[in-house]
Amino acid sequence: MALNKIVLIGAGNVATHLGKALVHVGYNVAQVYSRTTESAKTLAVLLGTEYTTELDAICMDADIYIVSLKDSVLPELIPYLVEKREKSLFVHTAGSISVDIWKGHALRYGVFYPMQTFSKCRDMDLANVPFFVEANDENECQYLRDLAGSLSSKVYDATSEQRKILHMAAVFACNFTNHMYVLCNHLLIKNGLSFEMMLPLIDETASKVHELLPKEAQTGPAVRYDLNVINRHLDMLKEEPDVQDIYEKISKSIHRYDKL
Amino acid sequence: MALNKIVLIGAGNVATHLGKALVHVGYNVAQVYSRTTESAKTLAVLLGTEYTTELDAICMDADIYIVSLKDSVLPELIPYLVEKREKSLFVHTAGSISVDIWKGHALRYGVFYPMQTFSKCRDMDLANVPFFVEANDENECQYLRDLAGSLSSKVYDATSEQRKILHMAAVFACNFTNHMYVLCNHLLIKNGLSFEMMLPLIDETASKVHELLPKEAQTGPAVRYDLNVINRHLDMLKEEPDVQDIYEKISKSIHRYDKL
Repeated sequence: MALNKIVLIGAGNVATHLGKALVHVGYNVAQVYSRTTESAKTLAVLLGTEYTTELDAICMDADIYIVSLKDSVLPELIPYLVEKREKSLFVHTAGSISVDIWKGHALRYGVFYPMQTFSKCRDMDLANVPFFVEANDENECQYLRDLAGSLSSKVYDATSEQRKILHMAAVFACNFTNHMYVLCNHLLIKNGLSFEMMLPLIDETASKVHELLPKEAQTGPAVRYDLNVINRHLDMLKEEPDVQDIYEKISKSIHRYDKL
Repeated sequence: MALNKIVLIGAGNVATHLGKALVHVGYNVAQVYSRTTESAKTLAVLLGTEYTTELDAICMDADIYIVSLKDSVLPELIPYLVEKREKSLFVHTAGSISVDIWKGHALRYGVFYPMQTFSKCRDMDLANVPFFVEANDENECQYLRDLAGSLSSKVYDATSEQRKILHMAAVFACNFTNHMYVLCNHLLIKNGLSFEMMLPLIDETASKVHELLPKEAQTGPAVRYDLNVINRHLDMLKEEPDVQDIYEKISKSIHRYDKL
């Protein structure tokens, strides 16, 4: 397995973390492709491998091509990429894209989705990251399970329909949660207060849902339906109507779910 | 200090966790007051102390009365509570209520605000919880700093104005974040998927902002402004217009903050 030749198509956050982890466990990441020289080169140097910015120069004989690009690029890229590489296995890493995007192009294909938030500037141990795999054939699927299993202890089969739900749910759990931190930080900074003081609260909020259902863990003015506090906060936000609107919508939603 | 006689007014989440921590470090929590017998008795048993449900039966000679009740109850309660107990120190634990609520009633008063999310069914070590204290007089303030300092290593002075901002920011960092977990769980359960798989993502989302500014930590379709994915998600949520609305509002807000 360690001799398998891997090519990374893309050099963004996901490609960077997958590439580092694959090299770390001994895989041969033979080449990195990206449209921009800077990102291709940066990742190639990090992995001690080659890079190219030309589709025509992507090597022909990799065992697996792992595609981590913005979703909208895939439909036009796939025909070029698969051409004359029919014996190889192709996978993409996007949560929201069906495995069928490869159908009619590649003969051996699948999905290799690590459900995590990756930032280039932050190191990440993939050992606990859930990987969701899917393929057009049981052999390929087993290959992907093994590949994921060499990086993480959490490997699951998921259909494209399931993965779409997981990805959307992850947007709430991660991206929208992080935006709550952004708004929190914005309100603090604006008033000369430090975000650092929020970290014990943020940590406990995340820790609680390891033990309690999220609904059971809810606290604060909205779940108490404490209109005194809610209205004072809405008044404090009156100069920022967009933030005020988010405050009101989420408070109403908290109250609604509490009654369910 | 350990001989100081403390009375807890209220037996909810905050009173429960404060009471346990105070008893644990050796304070004499002499009595618990709550309007309902069940909650008064439960907390009193837990702390090995007395309880009452009658305002008239609250003991007269405590050194400090710590009031942890729903904000809206305070204005009517305070005159009864303070009457004939003018020598005692009175504090409330609410983030959003000004210290001035005591003015004209008590002679010695302040605020003792632990900024954390407390649920009765979950144990909590207060050692890292930020406490924000304020008082009408430097002596009382030092007393409150010492009291907080015996429970936590993180004790700060904060004016009522600062505390209001902290409390509102905490609603975003904690209550609204937890609601994102609620919505995530709702979407998963509805589709037969398990919330547990989200925990590594939730933990990493919280951990990232120890190192990165929240804005730098942002990932996902909204910050990439990937309208393909955003519109697919909005379409998947069309049977839940309230959730769809929240998805749209937060996505727009993420995009707006990314451009700032």
